[in-house]
Formats: sequence, structure tokens, C-alpha cells
Amino acid sequence: MSEPIRIGLLGHGTVGGAFETLVTQRADAVEATTGRRPEVVGVLTRSQGDFDSILADSDVIVEVMGGLDPAKEMLASALRSGKHVITANKQLLSRHGDELWAIARENGVQLRFEAAVAGVVPVIRVLTGSLAGSRIDRIHGIVNGTTNFILSEMARTGADYADVLAEAQELGYAEADPTEDVAGLDAAAKISILARLAFGTSVDPDSVPCEGIEGIQPDDIAYASELGLGLKLIATAERVGEGISVRVHPAFLYPGHPLASVGGAFNAVTIESEDITEITLSGPGAGGPQTASAVLGDLVAIASGAVAEVPPATNELPVVSDSESAFYLHLEVEDRPGVLSQVATVLGDHGVSVRSVVQRGNAGNARLVMVSHPVADSNFRAALSVLAGLESLRAQPRAIRVIEEDFGG
Amino acid sequence: MSEPIRIGLLGHGTVGGAFETLVTQRADAVEATTGRRPEVVGVLTRSQGDFDSILADSDVIVEVMGGLDPAKEMLASALRSGKHVITANKQLLSRHGDELWAIARENGVQLRFEAAVAGVVPVIRVLTGSLAGSRIDRIHGIVNGTTNFILSEMARTGADYADVLAEAQELGYAEADPTEDVAGLDAAAKISILARLAFGTSVDPDSVPCEGIEGIQPDDIAYASELGLGLKLIATAERVGEGISVRVHPAFLYPGHPLASVGGAFNAVTIESEDITEITLSGPGAGGPQTASAVLGDLVAIASGAVAEVPPATNELPVVSDSESAFYLHLEVEDRPGVLSQVATVLGDHGVSVRSVVQRGNAGNARLVMVSHPVADSNFRAALSVLAGLESLRAQPRAIRVIEEDFGG
Repeated sequence: MSEPIRIGLLGHGTVGGAFETLVTQRADAVEATTGRRPEVVGVLTRSQGDFDSILADSDVIVEVMGGLDPAKEMLASALRSGKHVITANKQLLSRHGDELWAIARENGVQLRFEAAVAGVVPVIRVLTGSLAGSRIDRIHGIVNGTTNFILSEMARTGADYADVLAEAQELGYAEADPTEDVAGLDAAAKISILARLAFGTSVDPDSVPCEGIEGIQPDDIAYASELGLGLKLIATAERVGEGISVRVHPAFLYPGHPLASVGGAFNAVTIESEDITEITLSGPGAGGPQTASAVLGDLVAIASGAVAEVPPATNELPVVSDSESAFYLHLEVEDRPGVLSQVATVLGDHGVSVRSVVQRGNAGNARLVMVSHPVADSNFRAALSVLAGLESLRAQPRAIRVIEEDFGG
Repeated sequence: MSEPIRIGLLGHGTVGGAFETLVTQRADAVEATTGRRPEVVGVLTRSQGDFDSILADSDVIVEVMGGLDPAKEMLASALRSGKHVITANKQLLSRHGDELWAIARENGVQLRFEAAVAGVVPVIRVLTGSLAGSRIDRIHGIVNGTTNFILSEMARTGADYADVLAEAQELGYAEADPTEDVAGLDAAAKISILARLAFGTSVDPDSVPCEGIEGIQPDDIAYASELGLGLKLIATAERVGEGISVRVHPAFLYPGHPLASVGGAFNAVTIESEDITEITLSGPGAGGPQTASAVLGDLVAIASGAVAEVPPATNELPVVSDSESAFYLHLEVEDRPGVLSQVATVLGDHGVSVRSVVQRGNAGNARLVMVSHPVADSNFRAALSVLAGLESLRAQPRAIRVIEEDFGG
């Protein structure tokens, strides 16, 4: 009989329960592949189990309980005891990853975390493995399934944000308090982990500028759909000059874009590098069995003796707050001669060049829907604040970024 | 100074040259990540270099010359000498992979081959790594960039196959003799490797049923496009009952399908499993620098001490020749009463149920364009041969498979 690989499981919610089931179902396959049979030897929940005795009995600690405290202390303690750790905890890694990866390196053990970003989509393995020798220029993606579900449903049904959110809550796609997801904070934690791995520089998730989806109006989606554009919440980390820009915001995508067809609760990440052009990885970003499967992939890697180490963050790249995007701009204006030219003048004065414009009359008011060419954020925001002060404006201007088509071929 | 990792390079064409350049450009990054500095110590071409002395000087042999002979003997000899091997040679692995993987296992060295299938798209690493513990149900994808370029161009321009092929040859996307690509043989070699990895059973690439794209007519693409369908050359390996089906054929995809938006010379692979639902990986499937980057990813893995082993093919799953698909059917018939009902009767008699039909008059003839519900290939082929014999038929019927939408959400 082969030597077992003994697992201490911290947390027994949706993912923890699914993982325990999956380990039982796949024990034969894992043993055939790695020579070691996985076995859950202890489970810690709020009401049950003792961490120290679970730790003593385990070869690997799997943490799926979430939260910073006591997860951080427990994982540090496990690594210091020479145990490998697998975690799905994006908040913990985005805030204390460097401390934990250092403890893992010092103790010659592994800290794996495929499930922390984009569920079963193997972005961590590809970034730290296949692309470890490549210079990454940009990572952007859909890393939050809740908001992608809501935006997909708004586009499909024409319903407004509040109604679709309520539906998502009923279906279990959104939490009772959805702020973490809909305000982009969950995506910010994930993209700061990806930025750390891609650029070797620490990124504080609290410093990531976040725009959520709460302000999205159904008519923005409808107008943009006439232009062939679909709306997604996009997390981006990219090199800008000698620094990096890391941000989360809704963005319209052209139909040929590799992220444009990612619907429902799916996640997808595009990694760009001069060496590889770009690769895109997509799949379910959440779900108990799917996330559990990402954890199992990490377990198989550890059991088969594969090595993984996150090298120290040796770069200190400055975070650049200004980046360049095309913008969709929605204006409700008084319907009289001269207004369009007034708007065009304000845009032109700030270096904003218009790519397409649609004007529609509407009982004395007119709607102007414009898409700009790429322009510095700061310039566009300055133009926007001048526009907001125009007497002829009937409502606050609405602006959403547009990502240009860049798909191969 | 760190210990170097010495590379013997077999082949110095597009990929070999790009790899040598890339190693120089990325030497610092690879050394920082792995602690070992890569260095090309010898190059073998038809006119230059001696294999034995290159082998003696190297830690790793990189084979990008292609062909079965002398590549097979050289790689076997390298593995037996205790050297790791990285190859991009899909024909060699699809025919002699098991023999070479066994030699690697016996000698405790690695045989890596990410570049052999879908270029820089990390399907080998994901299949043998992240998903090593999962039960795979199906892999299908676009694994030949030449045919995807040709089909994308036919759809974009409406031009016919011969003209677009000539354009692809001029642009360097197709060989002077394009048979290997357009007849599906290249895709067959790649899908037989993926089937071997996913199902643990050897698949002879010569036994893979192949339909190429030579017979595709521009009006098939145009009609199907009215139904929202796009055409791709799809390679599939899937479980069917207790066996597997492995095949290559053109197929129409619904717009929501994860492979539908993959254009130009890009490749993409979707892996389905109950555990993970599905994940899709896409990116450039060819190109010197991109393929070289996949080879470099394997080199980084070896230099960093990661372990990879293809376990023996312990399963002997029977190959099932019949599988189930929906079909697009294009018929040119005499335009008189009763013909549609005659066609419908033939289809119904063979269990083929019609999902949509478009009929168009055309100077005494009519065109019937139909899409069926999924049906066994054998049933559909039987119906097709009866239809071909109908007196009212004006031309050979044309049939192309249709893959139903199955994208999450």
C-alpha cells in the first residue's frame, strides 16, 4: 500500500464540503497518478475540530474558510511546521501573500492557491509555470462571476440592475450583502494577486481604483449593443511606461474580443506578452465542485512532487494612476442648434477625439451617444467635468470605458 | 555564478531560430526564476553540427526539426543518456509517444512537449497538471491555425476555398503542399496526443476519421451565417459509452460557443469534465516566437526542478466509430410540390429530426437548408445516401456537423 497524503481541511462550507466529496470520488485516480492516496484526516469548522491536532495529523492543510483571521495565523503556523498549504483565500493572499510566500520559501514547503483567482481557470499555474520566463505586458479579465451574471442578464432581458441583482440573490449567485462583488472589491483582490505574480511587485488591493456596476443603466447596455458592444466588469493589470496600472471598472468590448463571449457566471483571463501575443483562459469562476476541483489540482501537484515557489517581490514598480482608454459617453441635452458643436468643442479642447456618435431626439431633449478614440483618463475626466457644468445638459453625463478589438487575425 | 542549463538545439528553422533568440533575451529572467542560466551550447542542422558531441555537452535537448527520422532515434538516445528532452514534434509523439515516454520514465528524465499541440496554448500543462485528478469527458478544439485562417477568411470575404488557400500560401499561413493541414491530418495527430493524455489510452493517428475543409463551399458558410452559425475545423476526443470517439471534421458552431469567436490563425481547446464543467484555453497556435515561447516554458519548468511524467497508457478503451451530432444539410432540389415532404419522409424514416429549415426558389430549382437535432452519424449517413439517390435532387447533398451551444450561463 502506498503512503497516504493526509489532508487537514479548514472550513466546511460549499467548497469544503464539495472538496471532501471530490477527494473520496477521485482517490483512486489521484493514487494512480501520484502514487499517494489522499485522505481527509480532520475537519475544522466554527463548532468542531481542534487546529493543533489536525495540523499534527496532516501532510497538507487545505484552507477554504475565508477571512483574514484566524486563517492567516493558521496558515503561517502550518507552513512553519513544514506542512504544505493550499488555499482559496484571495483576500488573505492579496493582503498578506508576500509574508506567507516568504514563510513557505524559508520552510521549503509549498503554498498553492489556484482556486483563489478565477476558480478552476488555471491562470495561476499558467502565470507561474508556462509563462514564468516571459515578460508579461498585460493581464485583464472577468474575474467575478456574480457581476458577469448580472451584466449578462441585464443585456439579455433589458431589466434594470436592482431587479437582476434580486434575481441573482435568489439563485444564489449574489450574497445578501453584494457590495464585495458589485463594487469590484473582490475583483480588486484577485487582480492584485495576478499583478504581483506577473510583475513581481506588491500591489495593495485597497489602492486599486474600483468602479462597480451599481450605476449601470439598461439603456447604456441597449445603446452600446447597437454599436455591437457588450458590457463586462474588467480587472486590468498592465505595464504603463516604467510603472503599472491596476484597476477594476466596467468596460464595453467589441464582439471579436476574446472576453466578449464569456457569459453568465463564467470567468476568463487574457494574458498578453510580446513573446506569446496573447492567451485566454476561461471557465467557471465559482461553484463548490469547480472550486474544489482547482484545490484538487493543487493537491495532485503536491502529491506528485511538483515544485512551486512564488519568488520574492523584487520589483518596486510605481503605480500609475492615469491610463488610456476609449470611452462611451451618454449625454442627455437640450434639443436645440449648437448643442452638439458645444459638446464637440469641449471634447476637442481636452484632446478627446470622437469615433462614432448617435443622436436621438426625445421630446425637446436629445440623447447623444458617443464613442471616443483612446485618450488619457485624466483628459477625459476633465472634459467630463466641464460637460457636467453645461447649461444645456439635462442629466449627469454617463461614461463607460471601451476596450478596442485586439483579437488575433 | 549559478550553474548553467546547457541546451542542445536540434533544428534551426523558424522555431529553432526564434528559440535561440528568445533564450538570449530571457536568460536573465530564467536565471532569476530558476537559479540556472540557459545557454544554447550546440545547434544541429542538416548541414552543420554533430549530434553525439552536442548531446555530450547538453543538459537538455530541444528538438524542433520535425519528422520521424532521425528525430525518434536522437530523442530516444538523449533520454537514455539521462538528458531531458523538449520537443514540438506532434507527428513523432502521436506515433511513438508511448515508447519515448516509457524511456523517459525508465531513465528518470523528462520529455516535455507543450509546443507540440496548439503552440503556446498551455493545454498539455493543464491536462497533465491541473486536471490530472479529474475525469475528462471531452476535449474538442481548433488545433490547426492554417484551416482556421482559411475558414475565417472565407467567412469574412465570401471568397471560395481555392482563392483563400492561395492567399494563405502567399502570406505563409499555408504550405506549398497544404494537404497535411487542410485534410485534417495535422489536427488528427494533435487530437490523438490529447486523447492519450486525457483518457490514458493510445490512439493511432491513422485511425482517426478525418474530414478536411477542401469541399467547403462559400454558400454553405453564407447560409449558415444566416442561422447565426460559424464554421471551424474541430478536432474531438470524447467518451462514448465505455469507449472513446476521436475525430476531425468541419463543424458549425452557435455564437455563444466558447470556440466560436476564435478567429484567424488562433487555436483554442475546450476541456469538459463533470468536476470542472468546462475550461477553454486559446491563443496563437503557431508562429516562430510563440512556439519558441512554449518551448521556453518547458525549459523553465525543467530548470526549476518541476517534475512531469506521462504515466503508462493503462486503459485500452475501444474506439467507437459512431458518434452523435446535429447536422447542417444543403440540398438542391427540383422546385415542385411534394419534394419537401419526400425529403422529410426520408429523414424521418432514419430518425433524423429537423430543427430548422430554410427554402429558397432559384430558377426552377429550390435550395433546402436544414439543421437537424442531434442524431447518430450512421443514421444520418444512411439518410444522406437515400437522399442522394432521389430523382428530384439536382446536386450532391452537402452535410456539415453542427455543435450545439453548451456555454455556461
